Amino acid sequence: MRQVAILGIGQTKIDEHWELSLREIGGVAAFAAMQDAGVDNADALFVGNMLSPLISGQNQLGAFFSDWIGLWQKESVKVEAACASGGAALRAGLMAVAAGDVESALVVGIEKMTDKSGHDITAALATAADADYEVEQGVSFVGLNALIMRRYMHEYGWKHADFAPFSINAHANAMHNPFARLHEKITVKDYVAARMVAEPINLLDASPIGDGAAAALLVPASLIPLTNHRVIRIIGSASATDTIAIHSRKDPLWLSAAEKSARKAYNQAGVTRDEIDFFELHDAFSIMSVLSLEACGFAARGEGPRLGLEGKIDPDGKIPITTRGGLKARGHPVGATGMYQIVETVQQLRGDADLTQVPGARIGMAQNIGGSGATVITHILKAS
Amino acid sequence: MRQVAILGIGQTKIDEHWELSLREIGGVAAFAAMQDAGVDNADALFVGNMLSPLISGQNQLGAFFSDWIGLWQKESVKVEAACASGGAALRAGLMAVAAGDVESALVVGIEKMTDKSGHDITAALATAADADYEVEQGVSFVGLNALIMRRYMHEYGWKHADFAPFSINAHANAMHNPFARLHEKITVKDYVAARMVAEPINLLDASPIGDGAAAALLVPASLIPLTNHRVIRIIGSASATDTIAIHSRKDPLWLSAAEKSARKAYNQAGVTRDEIDFFELHDAFSIMSVLSLEACGFAARGEGPRLGLEGKIDPDGKIPITTRGGLKARGHPVGATGMYQIVETVQQLRGDADLTQVPGARIGMAQNIGGSGATVITHILKAS
Repeated sequence: MRQVAILGIGQTKIDEHWELSLREIGGVAAFAAMQDAGVDNADALFVGNMLSPLISGQNQLGAFFSDWIGLWQKESVKVEAACASGGAALRAGLMAVAAGDVESALVVGIEKMTDKSGHDITAALATAADADYEVEQGVSFVGLNALIMRRYMHEYGWKHADFAPFSINAHANAMHNPFARLHEKITVKDYVAARMVAEPINLLDASPIGDGAAAALLVPASLIPLTNHRVIRIIGSASATDTIAIHSRKDPLWLSAAEKSARKAYNQAGVTRDEIDFFELHDAFSIMSVLSLEACGFAARGEGPRLGLEGKIDPDGKIPITTRGGLKARGHPVGATGMYQIVETVQQLRGDADLTQVPGARIGMAQNIGGSGATVITHILKAS
Repeated sequence: MRQVAILGIGQTKIDEHWELSLREIGGVAAFAAMQDAGVDNADALFVGNMLSPLISGQNQLGAFFSDWIGLWQKESVKVEAACASGGAALRAGLMAVAAGDVESALVVGIEKMTDKSGHDITAALATAADADYEVEQGVSFVGLNALIMRRYMHEYGWKHADFAPFSINAHANAMHNPFARLHEKITVKDYVAARMVAEPINLLDASPIGDGAAAALLVPASLIPLTNHRVIRIIGSASATDTIAIHSRKDPLWLSAAEKSARKAYNQAGVTRDEIDFFELHDAFSIMSVLSLEACGFAARGEGPRLGLEGKIDPDGKIPITTRGGLKARGHPVGATGMYQIVETVQQLRGDADLTQVPGARIGMAQNIGGSGATVITHILKAS
């Protein structure tokens, strides 16, 4: 299995891009990644997307995008794992390069969500949950996360305000990310006073949707020294699943797929969690930050909120998270999110993270979650 | 890149399975493939599906199925390339085993289509075409294929009845396939008299949709001699794309992605087209059989219908096609079709094809097409 590295990255600002079509948004990120890599072609294209059939009436995004961006006749396919679609597409590209089937792979995460009403989007996002046993009961995706957060607070005795640092940190970091959807610094007072969505999840616990695309160009690591690029290798990549319905889990407060995929990624990378310099986690809701940190070994069970309260998640803390704004403030264009995490991890490892640069960052981890922890994909990247 | 072989296959009958849910249909095929392989687990699951978000309100089919069939915590993901989703999922599984990332991969193609009305299905299938520039004009998927067939007849002077042998052969072969949707022998008279759908495509030019799933278990080829199974290796696997909209093609009568992927697969396999003993092609419409045969080199441009008229496509002909009924009579549960083709190719290579066995078959080719030739995936399998 060949070692694989990231030669170029690209992204669009996450926003309501009513002026850009589905293909145009993806094209912007794809071209940016190719330009950053200094190439004008790729052997194959892997697209991460969740909602285009439901929102844009468009399937077959592989051929759709390779046509649009001029990758004539190249292999191209879409990979879908709900909100983990971006990470899943990255793994598909990684396998193709690692196996030696192609010499370069372009991976694009893309989502266009704001063309539909909030009601339609809520229904579309619910397709990540179990249609027969969860959605059938009328529960929305935020509702499922609210059940988890309420149980967590009950079980371990935390108050809602104890989760504030996760949102405050994300919003503070996004201030320095021009591609972020939200540029609004928030305080504990704002957090506590925010409008309720599904108790106990309020508006400042939940990530905003948006239109956006993020991309990376993968090549064999052995190729990079021939270019002028810094070598950012993918040293760990692992995916694991859990039950799709939360009620089927032995412990709904433990992300077993996150634990499994992180452990596998640590082993592949030959690193311990203490060697991870920063962690781009999947904070779709603040409770998810807590559960991910615990499952990946950064906090003991039930102790996740303490990392926030003690300032350990800030860019100069012990385990910086959501350093470019995270899902909470950079935004969550669902099928694109996993690739935004990768782009941001590369920015940190290149030393290009502006005022939220993690000092001396050499090893970064990104974790992309589909559904309520049903699909979890962990990547570890290293600058060398 | 490790050589990969198919250890087990499984399938359901294609039908209106109103008694089985989406997960149940996929489970039947998955368990059958594992049972055939003599294993009760797999390291990863790759699901090919096109329409479940639109028809069943269910995304994230990877976690959904690994949960249902008990592949606890294993990697699992969905791959989509319209009607080529099955072949695309097979390639994803192949890459994972070839790269050495996993020691076994279960690939399941699944589609449940008959829970919705014909109008809904027509709209859902149109998502394989270009939403902005084709579907926006009101053209359906069969309409697009009708445009191609009409142009082909005009360009090369063939009459509609000249295409009859493709449907007749498919229906005759399906008589001996218990998993086929249609068990009705047809004649030229039936073909000519069939009800018109979109001129010149009539009901006997078009493949029937259906509910169904087909699966295969992949392992490193080096493992098979340790079992009692015949070694069926995947010796060629290639995917290529064309423009998604037909009007963008220089020549709408030439499947350039089929030519490209077949040529690449021949090269990988180290075989010429003359060494292909049979060809499971993608006869969604009879015109597609003709175009595939030409693009893959079995007939000169404009000469495809002659192969049918001269009896060369029958099981004992020069290049047998659709030996188990093809899309036309076995049925076309869109995202599952590519895996049905693989299952049937393995049946032939094992010598298990009953009365439609191709004598002495050792090398078989399967070609799965997404959209009107926008994604084409070719696999070559060999028994040794």
